[in-house]
Amino acid sequence: MTSVVIHDPTLRDGQHAVRHQLGVAALRGYARAADAAGIPVVEVGHGNGLGASSLQVGRAAVDDDLMLSTVREALRTSRMAVFMLPGWGTSGDLRRAVAHGADIVRIGVHCTETSLAERHLEFLREQGTDAHCVLMMSHMASPAELAEQAARAVGYGARAVGIMDSAGHLLPRDVTARIGAIAGAVDVPVIFHGHDNLGMAVANSLAAAEAGAGIIDGCARGFGAGAGNTRIEVLVPVLERSGFSTGIDLYGLLDAAEFAERELMSAPPVTGSLSIVSGLAGVFSGFKQQVLDAAGRGGVDPRDVFFELGRRQAIAGQEDLIVDVVAELGAGRAAS
Amino acid sequence: MTSVVIHDPTLRDGQHAVRHQLGVAALRGYARAADAAGIPVVEVGHGNGLGASSLQVGRAAVDDDLMLSTVREALRTSRMAVFMLPGWGTSGDLRRAVAHGADIVRIGVHCTETSLAERHLEFLREQGTDAHCVLMMSHMASPAELAEQAARAVGYGARAVGIMDSAGHLLPRDVTARIGAIAGAVDVPVIFHGHDNLGMAVANSLAAAEAGAGIIDGCARGFGAGAGNTRIEVLVPVLERSGFSTGIDLYGLLDAAEFAERELMSAPPVTGSLSIVSGLAGVFSGFKQQVLDAAGRGGVDPRDVFFELGRRQAIAGQEDLIVDVVAELGAGRAAS
Repeated sequence: MTSVVIHDPTLRDGQHAVRHQLGVAALRGYARAADAAGIPVVEVGHGNGLGASSLQVGRAAVDDDLMLSTVREALRTSRMAVFMLPGWGTSGDLRRAVAHGADIVRIGVHCTETSLAERHLEFLREQGTDAHCVLMMSHMASPAELAEQAARAVGYGARAVGIMDSAGHLLPRDVTARIGAIAGAVDVPVIFHGHDNLGMAVANSLAAAEAGAGIIDGCARGFGAGAGNTRIEVLVPVLERSGFSTGIDLYGLLDAAEFAERELMSAPPVTGSLSIVSGLAGVFSGFKQQVLDAAGRGGVDPRDVFFELGRRQAIAGQEDLIVDVVAELGAGRAAS
Repeated sequence: MTSVVIHDPTLRDGQHAVRHQLGVAALRGYARAADAAGIPVVEVGHGNGLGASSLQVGRAAVDDDLMLSTVREALRTSRMAVFMLPGWGTSGDLRRAVAHGADIVRIGVHCTETSLAERHLEFLREQGTDAHCVLMMSHMASPAELAEQAARAVGYGARAVGIMDSAGHLLPRDVTARIGAIAGAVDVPVIFHGHDNLGMAVANSLAAAEAGAGIIDGCARGFGAGAGNTRIEVLVPVLERSGFSTGIDLYGLLDAAEFAERELMSAPPVTGSLSIVSGLAGVFSGFKQQVLDAAGRGGVDPRDVFFELGRRQAIAGQEDLIVDVVAELGAGRAAS
């Protein structure tokens, strides 16, 4: 059987769904449950990663130091991972994470901007830390472009590289093409991280494994913003049934997911209309609240706003486009 | 573009999630919303179909006559469908459904027992009613067996025939094989009805369309027991994006799903541990409460009970096996 490493960002990506308010007991409890189930990697942090706790994207209930020391202490055999977005986190944050015993550091960049990860990946290589690079919003680049970006990341020192379907836009055939291209271009493990906007997260992850991905992400009950991520407790048995070995104990995994449903979230993610529309439009669903607010003020349909943002290829950081789009849709309607 | 007919059993299969308690206002409101969205077929009834309201499986809040007349009156362009399981429903029930203006009658049988549908399908052919036959628990038969059963149903008069993945066990490759075999054996539209236990309902439905299915089922927010059915509001845009035409208005569909979430259910379906285990084991998740009760009394793990029921190929109607399995698992543990 082919082995696949399951990477669990429940305690990082899930933070988005609870405004980064996971407390110490929740972090410790889930990390212990994940460790007991044999989940090989547990990622922890503010939803936007190291150094991101701020008024702008939300202050975390627990600071980076306490998050890392809590999870580090709870893990006996699982490795600990952290995530960093250049711009939010700095080299100082990386140093502290390594000092706290982070085994894996993931640097996330927009899918065409690998160069932003260069100095961080090189620093981590010098430290001997296992560095990963993930290309976000990967539906916005072709398989060939992604393969080129991935090869660059490996040149900078990444020991694993891959894609996030940040908008939940991809269908299995799209994943097969992208993962296949990357796997053909690099000789390190390839990562896939799915979102469930179009109900495809598990199917896309299976397609990724079949196309050669060696590291696949999943969160308990899909814990994450909007439609959520790939459900780890479904992903693992589907992979095992399809001929991939994960080393994870099924009952332990189901127990960890039940703990997460009970202790980490108010309710599991639900795929509402705007999650579907943002997935179809290929727009990061983190725009949701701002789209709703602006559309409400402008008297336009928020679904139209998402589709227009998709046509304009809006990405995170371009929230000012929302107001422009609302104004233009409102004006167009008034004129017609 | 290839056309696919979307068949919406929200008001029938969804009843399982609310113990058959949908009221007249809910039935009318959803039927109107589905009709406005252009969903071509709306199925209504007790969860177990015509004539099934009873102490044994639960009494419906609204009787068959009132359900059918309510929905008939609410639909302007959508066709109305009903469902019947031989044994629960009778020829008399079929006659009344036809008199109420049911456009489509679906007869459901275990996947190897098409002969139980024979006299009902022949009666409907005489009436000139559009009769469908659906083979349930279709993971328990091979593609070739299903194709043979489907051809028999067409011989009896079915104008469409297909499969239900009642246990939510199938993966896309399994669906491709089954739908492909049936499509090769009959010259009527082929039906696929998915369940989401392994997170594969939308991916399986897409695989079905690509393998030649012409009628695909979906429920608003997946409304149904346990992990629920295929989510129609996700299914339709995924099919459209993949080159299939449904004739359904996306915004109307999203509105109908929001109505359903608000007015039909307490919360959308969540895929819990026993939904996953029953899907993996290939056991109808309707056994859940009885398994929980018996396992609790016997002091055994309900997950073990599901896997053992799967090994014994238990199907609905064989609930007595649950007690046997619990007793044997308990005895095995005591002896070890």
